[in-house]
Amino acid sequence: MDMIPEPTLRRLPWYLAYVTMLHSQGVEYVSSTNMAGNLDVDSSQIAKDLSYLDIRGKTRIGYEVKGLEEQLARFLGFMQRHNAVVVGAGSLGSALMSDSGLGRYGLNIVAGFDSDPSKTGAKIAGTPVFGLDRLSEILESLNVKVAIITVPFDFAQDAADTCMDAGISGIWNFTPRRLRVRAGVVIQNTSIYSDLAVMYNRLDSLKNEK
Amino acid sequence: MDMIPEPTLRRLPWYLAYVTMLHSQGVEYVSSTNMAGNLDVDSSQIAKDLSYLDIRGKTRIGYEVKGLEEQLARFLGFMQRHNAVVVGAGSLGSALMSDSGLGRYGLNIVAGFDSDPSKTGAKIAGTPVFGLDRLSEILESLNVKVAIITVPFDFAQDAADTCMDAGISGIWNFTPRRLRVRAGVVIQNTSIYSDLAVMYNRLDSLKNEK
Repeated sequence: MDMIPEPTLRRLPWYLAYVTMLHSQGVEYVSSTNMAGNLDVDSSQIAKDLSYLDIRGKTRIGYEVKGLEEQLARFLGFMQRHNAVVVGAGSLGSALMSDSGLGRYGLNIVAGFDSDPSKTGAKIAGTPVFGLDRLSEILESLNVKVAIITVPFDFAQDAADTCMDAGISGIWNFTPRRLRVRAGVVIQNTSIYSDLAVMYNRLDSLKNEK
Repeated sequence: MDMIPEPTLRRLPWYLAYVTMLHSQGVEYVSSTNMAGNLDVDSSQIAKDLSYLDIRGKTRIGYEVKGLEEQLARFLGFMQRHNAVVVGAGSLGSALMSDSGLGRYGLNIVAGFDSDPSKTGAKIAGTPVFGLDRLSEILESLNVKVAIITVPFDFAQDAADTCMDAGISGIWNFTPRRLRVRAGVVIQNTSIYSDLAVMYNRLDSLKNEK
């Protein structure tokens, strides 16, 4: 696979969401100019981003919507099934377990883990929750690739270490803790509280300008 | 306020989470070297980031933990109360309404909105859910600054437009749709599906290397 730049990779899901909508509306073709007008990205940038895919637009007609949707979903890995566990079934963890959107994007959450005995044994959105002490055992028995870390800050590194010991290859970190990962393990940070800090700061600057 | 670089702003919540943990453990002082070892950021970078705050470390002792925690939380806007609404009480929207973490970071969700009549009139985590048709009316009656957009792609721009008409100043967009916003409105995108795409791609590259 060609090494694809991260900014391109981050834009492709926007295009996918757009063509999925067009498909549901029965639209058959879409030009990069039309996409540009709706997605706030230059049409030349869109054409360049889509050149990483195995699809060509037709002059004056554009891309075939259904084909583009499939190519994008396949290219992004959303058509594959990636087994995952949620470590920490607190408010954010249960939220992610309940988010059916993740399933549509290829993430198949097979189990949750929590240290709170009142949560273990129960199910969240149909998915069982186990005690944290059973993490290694269950990770090894299921074919799990991705661990979603949503425990409190203090426990985040231990949770990640246990997952890596059990052979996990991807860690999706929702905690504000920077995790140390081993060579060959992919770490993806999603920092919603950093996003919040950036938004507050801009709101403040705005207020000060007025 | 000095214009603070976004990368600095995004790192400050990591420092806050770390010193909050230290505070709960009864630790009184922390050096930037100690922080560096735990947070995977250079100590010189940490010192530089913290220089935006009104706090000075002491030679050989470092920063006072409690003071640093307060300064960080205040600087980041987490001590203020920002009223917000969630537009779209589907799986992700209800998840955010149930995430008590957001409250600790200054985001006070006062209402949710959804077009599904089976959801309206009910409460999610104690917060009422109204019909989307009441969005303008309720935004105008409450002092709401931030709208969190979690509706499906097709409705995202309309929802944002309605919020801006009602005078909202910040839009936190969790949809994969790029939203057009007016001058003077802050937009913050959180693209968890883009994060997922980046993680899948790296996992694939890893597999191909082996």
